[in-house]
Amino acid sequence: MTDQRQAWVLRQYPTGMPDGNTFELITSAIPAPGAGEVVTRNHYLSIDPYMRGRLSTRKSYAPSVQIGEVMTGETVGEVIASADPAFSVGDIVVGARGWETHSVSKAAALTKLTGTLAPLSTYLGVLGMPGVTAYYAMKDIGAPKAGETVLISAASGAVGAVAGQIAKRAGCRVVGIAGGPEKCLYVQEQLGFDACVDHRADDLTAAIADACPKGVDVYYENVGGAVQAAAFANLNFFARVIMCGMVAQYNATELPPGPNLGFVVAKRVKIQGLIVFDKPQYYAEWREMAAPWVLDGSFVYRETVMDGISSAPEALVGVLSGGNFGKMVVKLV
Amino acid sequence: MTDQRQAWVLRQYPTGMPDGNTFELITSAIPAPGAGEVVTRNHYLSIDPYMRGRLSTRKSYAPSVQIGEVMTGETVGEVIASADPAFSVGDIVVGARGWETHSVSKAAALTKLTGTLAPLSTYLGVLGMPGVTAYYAMKDIGAPKAGETVLISAASGAVGAVAGQIAKRAGCRVVGIAGGPEKCLYVQEQLGFDACVDHRADDLTAAIADACPKGVDVYYENVGGAVQAAAFANLNFFARVIMCGMVAQYNATELPPGPNLGFVVAKRVKIQGLIVFDKPQYYAEWREMAAPWVLDGSFVYRETVMDGISSAPEALVGVLSGGNFGKMVVKLV
Repeated sequence: MTDQRQAWVLRQYPTGMPDGNTFELITSAIPAPGAGEVVTRNHYLSIDPYMRGRLSTRKSYAPSVQIGEVMTGETVGEVIASADPAFSVGDIVVGARGWETHSVSKAAALTKLTGTLAPLSTYLGVLGMPGVTAYYAMKDIGAPKAGETVLISAASGAVGAVAGQIAKRAGCRVVGIAGGPEKCLYVQEQLGFDACVDHRADDLTAAIADACPKGVDVYYENVGGAVQAAAFANLNFFARVIMCGMVAQYNATELPPGPNLGFVVAKRVKIQGLIVFDKPQYYAEWREMAAPWVLDGSFVYRETVMDGISSAPEALVGVLSGGNFGKMVVKLV
Repeated sequence: MTDQRQAWVLRQYPTGMPDGNTFELITSAIPAPGAGEVVTRNHYLSIDPYMRGRLSTRKSYAPSVQIGEVMTGETVGEVIASADPAFSVGDIVVGARGWETHSVSKAAALTKLTGTLAPLSTYLGVLGMPGVTAYYAMKDIGAPKAGETVLISAASGAVGAVAGQIAKRAGCRVVGIAGGPEKCLYVQEQLGFDACVDHRADDLTAAIADACPKGVDVYYENVGGAVQAAAFANLNFFARVIMCGMVAQYNATELPPGPNLGFVVAKRVKIQGLIVFDKPQYYAEWREMAAPWVLDGSFVYRETVMDGISSAPEALVGVLSGGNFGKMVVKLV
């Protein structure tokens, strides 16, 4: 264990993709906890597409990270000092937020993991925020019924992979959209989707139609742009569209127009957005349900693990440019 | 009572607005009912924006009217001959469908009106399809709560006027959008909305913001286009958008792009389409609830009444171009 804390602070808001001037790595002493606080040594840091939204003064659902602040991001780690009776040294916890090797957190912000634990990194992915996002979306918005067709963009990603496996367990035909033959093969062979469409197809609308001969009842939107347009063209009557993210435009300086919404009336479509932090109670619910599936190997996940706190900015660029494969995490110990 | 039946049949699909070549008025003998059929003398014919969609081979939620077929449209009338035990001469019924003075209908397609009746034309408007549409939309999608702000486009129209009055009864701040000072005055003074914005305002987004200082929780979409864009810009977190119609583009030969949907994620907006015929059971429910309000004058409605079957095509053009005021009906007797 080092006795210094390293942390990435925001130096300036990026235009387009984050670059070498966006963050600065600083080193300081590990702080001691104040009353009601807990200090963690973070084992893994989660890197997720939503982070691009925090690097902008554009009004969004959560406050921007301020210049000079530590960049936000969820971690899993162990308690190394506690000034709160609910936590002891050695406890494994999630909830500390920051691109940093050590965090000082309010005890109320942390969740202690107990029982037989899955690999720690999974609490940031399949059992963490991305997994809970997919669970919430499928439970409250998509509500897929057996025999329906579910189409999932960014299907090899941390959220899409979970959403698709949930839909398979619900008895649906599940079709993914992913970038390139390697990801498509993974989606079909490893994740067990019924089909996967490469979003680089010449005629994506037709390719989706081929893979979804009965049309699309639930579309899980992670991407936006041309993928969205092609997916929307294949929606069935009474389709549900889960608006989870539009990573294709997170670096855009000007937003392109979207679809004419006439079809929403004619087909009685529901298009609904969600953000996982509206349902904090779903974290425990999902962990309890899915941890056994992760432990027995029946639920598949893949991670890209970058090594060391210094790699965090590069990991974010990877997530935003589609270069990663599965859930992106940074290993800190 | 004439002893001839007059009916408008479709001669050719219009490009853009229907014109003098779209329909043809034909005259024939009044048919006798077959077994299980009922013949009605229609008193009023309803003219509604959805009819434009039937005059197109573009795929939609209901079949197109075919060349040579009688144009579709709901009527209210009286039974003049019946070959079904459930109906007798003199019964007042809704459900016969056609731009025609007399209709032959299956008994199952008709609903007998009983009890103390409101004026017959209201069963095509405030108590008919447009009223039920607004009721369904507010009950199942908008679900406005007391204190919320509800914004309604085409507010002086048959659907908007009902939707707004339902929202007022729910304790909401209700703001209309209408075209021109006369309609706006009517919406505010007669219908009792809290405010009304002229969609011809220089900066419609700002005008809506002024009228909705706490933002928009429920937006009732009847229009599309620039009105939609301005309304969407004012949506609150967790807003519900009722996609009922987009009359601004019903004559468009090419659909314009729509809004970038990024805000749906960030604001957790729900955008949902509806078509009234998915909930046939709501007709009786709404008539029972609202007929007393119509009879006691507490529920306001306005009609444009055109005289005689020959005026039906002109009435449709009026509805599609915003020239009418309130519910458009054609008086047939």
